[in-house]
Amino acid sequence: MSEAIKLFQYNTLSALMAGLYGGTLTIGELLEHGDLGIGTLDSIDGELIVLDGKAYQAKGSDGRVEVVEVSEDVKVPYAAVVPHEAEVIFKQRFEMSDKELEKRIESYYDGVNLFRSIKITGHFAHMHVRMIPKSTSDRKFAEVATHQPEYTQDNVSGTIVGIWTPEMFHGVSVAGYHLHFISADHTFGGHVMDFVISEGIVEVGAVDQLDQRFPVQDRKYLFAKFNMDELKDDIDKSE
Amino acid sequence: MSEAIKLFQYNTLSALMAGLYGGTLTIGELLEHGDLGIGTLDSIDGELIVLDGKAYQAKGSDGRVEVVEVSEDVKVPYAAVVPHEAEVIFKQRFEMSDKELEKRIESYYDGVNLFRSIKITGHFAHMHVRMIPKSTSDRKFAEVATHQPEYTQDNVSGTIVGIWTPEMFHGVSVAGYHLHFISADHTFGGHVMDFVISEGIVEVGAVDQLDQRFPVQDRKYLFAKFNMDELKDDIDKSE
Repeated sequence: MSEAIKLFQYNTLSALMAGLYGGTLTIGELLEHGDLGIGTLDSIDGELIVLDGKAYQAKGSDGRVEVVEVSEDVKVPYAAVVPHEAEVIFKQRFEMSDKELEKRIESYYDGVNLFRSIKITGHFAHMHVRMIPKSTSDRKFAEVATHQPEYTQDNVSGTIVGIWTPEMFHGVSVAGYHLHFISADHTFGGHVMDFVISEGIVEVGAVDQLDQRFPVQDRKYLFAKFNMDELKDDIDKSE
Repeated sequence: MSEAIKLFQYNTLSALMAGLYGGTLTIGELLEHGDLGIGTLDSIDGELIVLDGKAYQAKGSDGRVEVVEVSEDVKVPYAAVVPHEAEVIFKQRFEMSDKELEKRIESYYDGVNLFRSIKITGHFAHMHVRMIPKSTSDRKFAEVATHQPEYTQDNVSGTIVGIWTPEMFHGVSVAGYHLHFISADHTFGGHVMDFVISEGIVEVGAVDQLDQRFPVQDRKYLFAKFNMDELKDDIDKSE
């Protein structure tokens, strides 16, 4: 049997939702655990995209999207990465909405009780993303998210990366798809809201185990009071 | 920094609640990941107690409790073990109910957002346990649990072992305490319902990470349909 594939998740989405935005794990350490994934940066300063072992930050700045490679010493409050290994690869040869493509992807799953890694490389007739704006306060994520800039681009090539989470882990992560996009020329990207794919290659990766880490030395995390029902609602609203 | 302590959880409590009782991990493999913990055996045949690196099965048989050491080739459908390392140790020198002792234990926690291992060795004025009865059908755990035998013993020495789970992971595990008991003479034990401690030593162990495994080759698990709201209710009722 080949080596088990571990989804490395640093902190939980609920902690992020609760306003714990301070970075506590370096990008360097994060990249030791996977080459594909998503997350956010210290002070929720935009969206983190991990593609082919490199980390990128997409943020909205003066009404424009900016994408930069992130250096190894930058810290993240929340991220999930995996050593992506495609188990199913298929060509998407005609136009589909995100909802239609998601249905097609799920038709290849062996049940819905394991995490999966997702990689979609292609050309998109339409791509709609958002970026969480930097926030140093303890404002709740769901409040910050109501004012987050959204951007669209038509006819853009690039890659969607992300994680699919079984419902059992909603709260720890977001149930279903959590996808980020980066354009091939690294000038556009963010947290995926919706899209229309023209054509592309879709890879669905197996995940055998969850390696869940906690910021065990972060007093803010340790002593935070989480209202789980509220946080799950916030995840539904924000993610 | 000392090595990170990992809680090894095999499968999820929700999968067990949904009726997936077939064992898929051997006790031998399980014990490689921890020396203290809880679980159940193949066909939910009683309660699993892992103490000092040894695995015991407590079951109700003809109105009597039977406790036996479990051999390495027996399989489990669900278990959680940890290389227990006490972070806080305290002497409990006077009588307390389980609820009072739990409050005292929690007063030593650094917040409620990390898992913890629990070990309570002492003398108990009263111990009330139950054992899930063997079931090979796909009857829901909550239904089986309504008919499970309960046993009490007064003035018994022994050890309580278990895991404390943060609320965020309810469903994956049971939020709060999940405790099993084994008497010092290995003639009494089971899933702890309530107790009165006379005196004892309480150890609370740190857990830094969750190493969550899934039965990735079990078709029953992969294709099971889980109704999470119902399963969380079942966990509340049964655990």
